[in-house]
Formats: sequence, C-alpha cells, structure tokens
Amino acid sequence: MDFAGEHVISVDQFDVVKVERLFAVADGMLPYARRQRVTRVLEGAICGILFFEPSTRSRLSFGAAFHRLGGQIVETTGFAFSSMAKGESIYDTSRVVSGYVDAMVVRHPEAGAVGEFAAATRVPVINGGDGPGEHPTQALVDFYTLCRELGKRPGSLGGATVAVVGDLKYGRTAHSLTKLLALEHQIRFVCIAPPELQLPEPLVAALRERGHRVEQTEELADGLRNADVVYATRIQQERLPAGLTLDGVQDRFAIDAALYDRVCRPGTVLMHPLPRDSRNNPSELSNDLNRHPALAIFRQTDYGIPVRMALFALVLGVADQVDATARDASWYRPERFGVDDTKPMLP
Amino acid sequence: MDFAGEHVISVDQFDVVKVERLFAVADGMLPYARRQRVTRVLEGAICGILFFEPSTRSRLSFGAAFHRLGGQIVETTGFAFSSMAKGESIYDTSRVVSGYVDAMVVRHPEAGAVGEFAAATRVPVINGGDGPGEHPTQALVDFYTLCRELGKRPGSLGGATVAVVGDLKYGRTAHSLTKLLALEHQIRFVCIAPPELQLPEPLVAALRERGHRVEQTEELADGLRNADVVYATRIQQERLPAGLTLDGVQDRFAIDAALYDRVCRPGTVLMHPLPRDSRNNPSELSNDLNRHPALAIFRQTDYGIPVRMALFALVLGVADQVDATARDASWYRPERFGVDDTKPMLP
Amino acid sequence: MDFAGEHVISVDQFDVVKVERLFAVADGMLPYARRQRVTRVLEGAICGILFFEPSTRSRLSFGAAFHRLGGQIVETTGFAFSSMAKGESIYDTSRVVSGYVDAMVVRHPEAGAVGEFAAATRVPVINGGDGPGEHPTQALVDFYTLCRELGKRPGSLGGATVAVVGDLKYGRTAHSLTKLLALEHQIRFVCIAPPELQLPEPLVAALRERGHRVEQTEELADGLRNADVVYATRIQQERLPAGLTLDGVQDRFAIDAALYDRVCRPGTVLMHPLPRDSRNNPSELSNDLNRHPALAIFRQTDYGIPVRMALFALVLGVADQVDATARDASWYRPERFGVDDTKPMLP
Repeated sequence: MDFAGEHVISVDQFDVVKVERLFAVADGMLPYARRQRVTRVLEGAICGILFFEPSTRSRLSFGAAFHRLGGQIVETTGFAFSSMAKGESIYDTSRVVSGYVDAMVVRHPEAGAVGEFAAATRVPVINGGDGPGEHPTQALVDFYTLCRELGKRPGSLGGATVAVVGDLKYGRTAHSLTKLLALEHQIRFVCIAPPELQLPEPLVAALRERGHRVEQTEELADGLRNADVVYATRIQQERLPAGLTLDGVQDRFAIDAALYDRVCRPGTVLMHPLPRDSRNNPSELSNDLNRHPALAIFRQTDYGIPVRMALFALVLGVADQVDATARDASWYRPERFGVDDTKPMLP
Repeated sequence: MDFAGEHVISVDQFDVVKVERLFAVADGMLPYARRQRVTRVLEGAICGILFFEPSTRSRLSFGAAFHRLGGQIVETTGFAFSSMAKGESIYDTSRVVSGYVDAMVVRHPEAGAVGEFAAATRVPVINGGDGPGEHPTQALVDFYTLCRELGKRPGSLGGATVAVVGDLKYGRTAHSLTKLLALEHQIRFVCIAPPELQLPEPLVAALRERGHRVEQTEELADGLRNADVVYATRIQQERLPAGLTLDGVQDRFAIDAALYDRVCRPGTVLMHPLPRDSRNNPSELSNDLNRHPALAIFRQTDYGIPVRMALFALVLGVADQVDATARDASWYRPERFGVDDTKPMLP
Repeated sequence: MDFAGEHVISVDQFDVVKVERLFAVADGMLPYARRQRVTRVLEGAICGILFFEPSTRSRLSFGAAFHRLGGQIVETTGFAFSSMAKGESIYDTSRVVSGYVDAMVVRHPEAGAVGEFAAATRVPVINGGDGPGEHPTQALVDFYTLCRELGKRPGSLGGATVAVVGDLKYGRTAHSLTKLLALEHQIRFVCIAPPELQLPEPLVAALRERGHRVEQTEELADGLRNADVVYATRIQQERLPAGLTLDGVQDRFAIDAALYDRVCRPGTVLMHPLPRDSRNNPSELSNDLNRHPALAIFRQTDYGIPVRMALFALVLGVADQVDATARDASWYRPERFGVDDTKPMLP
C-alpha cells in the first residue's frame, strides 16, 4: 500500500485500500488545486513529460499538477524523440531521460510501450495513456469524481446505479472506470449502446461474477431512469471497424436538458471523459446543459489536478510532507467569473 | 481602476487613469526585469499560455514575465488543441484549462476568439493577439516605451509629434498605438504611407474629433522632420488585397542612418513593433542604425517584460506585494556584452 | 580563468586549467544532479533554450540542468522563429531574446550561427550544437566521464590508451573529444575505422605534433586490445558523401559482449555519444552489454547534468554560492529500479 517508488501503469494495480489511500491524499490536495494554498514540497524535483502522441489537455493537467507541488517540468510533445527517429530503442531513451528527472509521465500510441519505458527507467513512470491500452489516471479521476459527486468513499458505493452510454466496446475510458467500479459491492451497471458497441462479453461476465448487476439496452431514455450517475462517451466513427457505419447513431445516444429533465431523477450526475464533440448537435451531453447543476464534466477535469498531485506525491514519497511546506496563496482568486459549475450537486 | 480579476482583451478598456496605474506598476517592475532583484510574489501560481498561431517572441515574453514574478507556466504552441481537432468547443477548452491555471494568455488567428475564451473561463485572460483583431499588450508596451523615451507620464504628452510610417491601413499595431495616443491631448500625428495604405478614414475622423491634428503624406523625408517619435512598420505584400502590388514601395519608406541624420531633429526616437525584414536592404529601419542611440526598438522589446509583469500582477491582485517578497539577485549580470542600446536618448 | 559572462562556443576556448575548474565545479554538482540535495542559487533566473533543429535529449538535459540550479526556462523547439520566417535577422532575434533571459542555449543547423547569436546578445550564450560545427558541451561531458571512469583528474591522463571507433571523419563528437584529450600528455590514440572514414589528416598531424601517439587500423579486435577507454560512434550512411556505400561496414565495427570479453582487458570502459542505432544488431555497442559494468554510456548521459550545471553556474558567476542556498531533498529517490548502471568500474 506504500506507493513510493512505484510505477502507475494500469488500473489493475489498484484495490479498494489503495484507491482509498489515493483519494484521501487527493482530498488533502484540494486547497492547493483550488489555489488557496501553496506548497513547495517538490521544490527542486523535475518531472519529464514525454508525449509521443498529442493530448494537450492531459499534458497540461500533469504539468500543472507537478507545478502545484512546487516541482519543475521538462517535456517533449513531438511524435517522436529526434534520437528515436535515428533508431534509438525505448530502453535507451527511457534510461537516458531517467537520469535527468525524478519522475516521468509517458503517453504513447502503442499499447504496452509505457510499460517498456517503466522497465528501463530508474524513476517512477506514470502511464499518460498508451493507445488502445490504458489511461489509468483518467479512470482514477473519473472514479474520484463519482465518489465526490455522490458524497461517498470508495468501497461504500454499493447499490448505486451507473449508466454508461455510447461506445462501450472500443471506448477505453468506459472499460477502465468499469474495472475500478468492479472493486465495489453490488453496483447496477446499465449499459446503453447499440448492440455493435456494447460492453465486451468477458467484461460483462467478470462484473457479474463479482456480484454486480449488468443490464444492456439500446433505449437511451429507459436506461437513464433511476441512474445515480450517467457516464456518457463519444461514438467515434474513426474507431469503428471498416464497414460499420453509424449514421444517426450519435443522435440516438445524445442527452440534452429536455431529456434529462424528462427522464432522470433529481440528483442524477452527468459525467463525460471529454472532449465532447460540439460539431454535433445534440452532442453526447449537449451545450444546453452547460449551466445545469447536474453537469459534472468540469468538476471532473478540475479533479484531474488533485488526483494527479496525489499520485505524484505518493510515488515520490512526500504525501505526508505537503502541508509542512505550505502557506496561504497570496494572489487573488477570482470567483466571480463564468458559471459557477464547481459545486457538486449532492442528492 | 482595480484590475484584479479583469480580462485584458482590448485597448478600448484603457483610459488615462488606468494606463497611468499600469505604467506606475511597470516602473516598479524594472529592477526585476533587469535582473537586479528577484521576487516570488506569484510562487505557486501557474499561467496557461495557449498559442493557436505561432508568435515565438510574444510567447517567450509572456512566459519570461510570469517567471520573473516567481510563477510557473504550462503552454501549448501547436496550431490547435488535440481535443479541438476532435470538435471540442472553445467553451469547453477554455473552461477545462481554467481549472488548471491562475491566468491564461491566448493567441488565436481569428478576431474575437480570445474574447470567447474569456467568456468561458474562471480566471483572467490576456489577449496575446487575435489575428486581425487586437494585440493590446503590444500597444501598451509601445505606449510605455514612447513615454519613457520622451521622459513623460501618460496624460502629459500633449503637443508631441508622432510620425507613423508604413502600412497604416492593415497594420494592427499602428491602429492600437494610435488609439492609446488618442487618450492624450493635442497630439500631432504625421501619417506617412502610400495613399492605398493610409490610416482608415474613420480612425482619422475620430482622432480629429478628439482635438488631435492629423497630417497625411507620402513623402518620407518631409514627414520625418520635427517628429519627436517615429513609429515605423512593415509593409507586407501578403497582407495587401489581391491585385495591389507594391514593388519598390518598401524602399520608399525605409529609414537608414543617412536619412535620419539628414532630416530628423536631434533626439527623434525610432520605434518599430518588430520583426524588421532584414532580407530587404534598406529595411524599415536599416541595420546601419543598430548602434545609433536613437534606435529604441530593443528598449521597446525589453520593456515587454515589465509591462507584462505589471499586467499579470494587476489582474492577479498582487501588485502591492511584489517588493515584500523580493531580494537582490545573486547572479552575475553581464553588462559588457554587445552594444549598449538600453539607455533612452532623452532630448 | 573566470568564466563569468563568457560565451561557450567551442572546445578551443578550453585549456587544462579551465577544464579542471569546470570539472571541480561539476564534482560539486553531483549531489544536486543525483537529487540528494536541492539548491536555489539561480532562483529567479531564466534560461532561453532556442533549438532551431531537433535534439530532444540535449534540450531536456540543458533544461533539467538549469532547473536543478533553481532557475526557470523558456524555450522554442520549432525549426525557426516565426519572426525569422518573416525575414528577421539573427542579430534582432538574439538581441530581443537576450532582453528576456539571463542566459541562452542555442542549437542551429548551420556552423557559425551560434557565434552570430553570441555576437548580438547581452547575456552568455552556450552552443548546443551548430550543425557540422561544434557541440562543446557534449565533448566536455565525454571528457568528464572519461576522467571519472579512469579515476583521474584532467591533466593527469598521460599514458592512457583511447580507442575511437566508427566514423572518425565526419563524426563531430570524436573530433571534439580528441581535441580535448590533446590537452593531455602522451595519449595513445587507436583510431579504428575503414580507411574512408579515418580521422582527418590535419587532426592526426596536430595530435602527433603535441607528442601523442596515433595508430590507425581497420581491425576492430586488434584495435580494442589494451584500450583503457573505447569511444564508439555511429556510422551514418546519410552523412557519407554520395557514391560511398558502406554495406556491412556497421557490422564490422560493432562491439558486443562476446567480443568485449574475448579481446578487451578487464576494466576497459565503453563509451558512446548516443544515440545507438538499435535497428542494427549488432549495433555499435550491442544491447547484450546493457547489464555489463563496462558500459559507461548511461553514466555518460547522467553526467550531462552536473557538467551543464557547472557551465551555467560558472558563466552566471554563482559557482561559489550553490551550497549556501542548498538543503537536503525531501523526496524519495528510488534506488531499486532497473539495472544499477551508475557505478564507475574503476580498474
């Protein structure tokens, strides 16, 4: 349960005890993430952020989280290291960079590549997404949000109804969140998707074996009823196998304010791993929900900071020293901007 | 007059009182910008620098200014966010990033886009240039330089003669500086340009209505006589409407040392928003002026740091706390390098 | 011998006394580079890292070194400044950036370009590689590694046998290291290469004139016998003149564990400027040497940090103040990861 010096490659590394420890540390990070306090616990430390495929938002989130702990970052955002273009192996690249930094975040288009980086390095590696593989910090942020929105601790979500909507077959985020929720007792999963994009059978079987209830439907309105949480995802034509066209399918699985008010029970929380595709209207979660208190998608991205701060602090063994090096922030924190979409809508 | 929590989108937000406050704070930033002192007033704060079109110099200037206040930066320099490429709206992108940072600088190729970012964010946004729209910090730096070179405070430039040269029709920087100078009393504007590239008529009318004198000429030598300040700009073929060719025009509006010494009165200050096009010889301000004390173009870029530091400090509400967290710099400041082009040539 | 305010453009600037001073400072940087201690001697200072051609590893190494001293970086990694694309001169670009920062690292594809940057700047410039020209920090890191692996101080390597292998004609790193070693007394150089790629005759003559012994061979096994240090380099087809094909040559100059154990005497140190081309098998230094204590290539890249830290501290005049602003690092330094390839194999 001591994270210090560990790599974070997969959600499979987590059990309830470990998730609980992570989330407790993340709770403690909230005043820093919200800019009320400043810590310099990682002053002098450097994080190498190596993104071999673009993901601006994840990259900024990891960088900001490390900075909020007082550390520095060096990063590369190109599709490849210049040295890798000359035939350098992952072993060499990883070992070299690990001599410059104290931790690494690696994103790579190939499943398993981040694990290869971890095998060669001398510092902890955090998986920032390895293509069709995993994106464990996204899943942990999603799970953290879900717990905070429902006002529950991990391990005590038993009985909750979670509707997952969209591309459940190819969508990496839905799989990972499902795996983490499987650590709970007796969750009711309502899987809303066209038959071609339903949750893979082995995953359904695994959930049922652990005592969870899994219902599958392609009727959006029916599926949303009685959900405590709705986790919507994008249906991306480019991810589908050749030959499978889904004209109009996106529309059938789009949620807007009118549908929410008509079928969801009060307090149902709306989540999404983002990005939403705003070229479609309605989109997975339509823009007319932007001012709706149920829409938790920006609380979700906000929570990316404390959860990633917690992971860094844990793998670098400083989680207990954060407050000792802290002070109040001196600068103005404007609260008057925009919509106030930061308060969870507890039921 | 309190900037705290404000966005900085347009020069139209500024009146003389506000400019005076900004410049007073910028004056106080000079020892930090000149590396004589170090402050950590923004230690722990993060600025998101989102540049959706390239502008290396502006980007480095904003980044250095935030660092000089003790803060950190996260940035993206690509033409687009990876998530925006997937159809994400400005609203979502801006709101998400505003959950990671304390302030944002946005540059975007489309007029109005930065305002859209500001509308969705929960932190102050500074316009780093929105295409044909505005680039307010450039105008404020230009105005600050002009005041310092003339040894005057804003509001007390009455009676000065300012020659603006080059592309006055499409050149964004000339428009913005003109608007700020219009806040003064009785400026004499000498607009030197080919007729096709003269200052837009509505702008001329507005200046006259406020009591300023506007003269228009295409004779460079004539126009330069009696100027206190010359603000030269590039004539860029690519900005001109199709069909309008300006072969040789660049040469007619180029200033070199011989011309300066022949027609300008002693003390005339030479400014330029940069870059100068050094493929042309003579260029707008020729390289043979590089050692001339009249050439203020590098003092102008140097002043980009204190002015941007002042803006950050004001919108984040820490302008009065800068000195309290400061100490002398410990490292060597080489003064022996290169030409000393840093001293204003007061008349 | 005082580096303060100097540019670092060429290995020709260094004599034994200067190298000794640099290496003594680098030795003092080891606890910081190894993350045992944290200094903030350059807190508030900014380094501009301008890379006009890609070199991810060098860029990260310079950035990490400046951060380890407590400083900040601003950087550009594109092929050109946006303003240079508009015709801006090196003079203007360099002078402008030097108004933002305290030191600059410049990498450029053209020989001599970095010197042009230095001529225009008001802050120290470090050459990060100028195409076919120089890459002085790489040579200094190589020399530092060689001294540490042999347990000797610069100036006391007399009598050592150094085998240089591969492309000795076009390989910039071999030339530079050779020049630095030429400062020693009576080195025995064994130059192992195909005749077309042997060390240039003027360099051989210069070495002999200074009293060094130079042997040339194309027999790898013969050449390796009795070497204290082997410095292997890549043979890159793309660097060769048109018409010169070297099919199979790479294989003839590849070193693997079996060859090492068969012909090298115990304690022979294996170095390489990296990257190794891992698409070839065997490569210049094969992967089966990765766990071999003789393989010093990662100690070599690790030493990039203390040597570059020392250069920054010296040119900014703070080398004597580093320890005064230091404290022990608070975070966990995992020693249990990967192979322990960090201990020199002293003979």
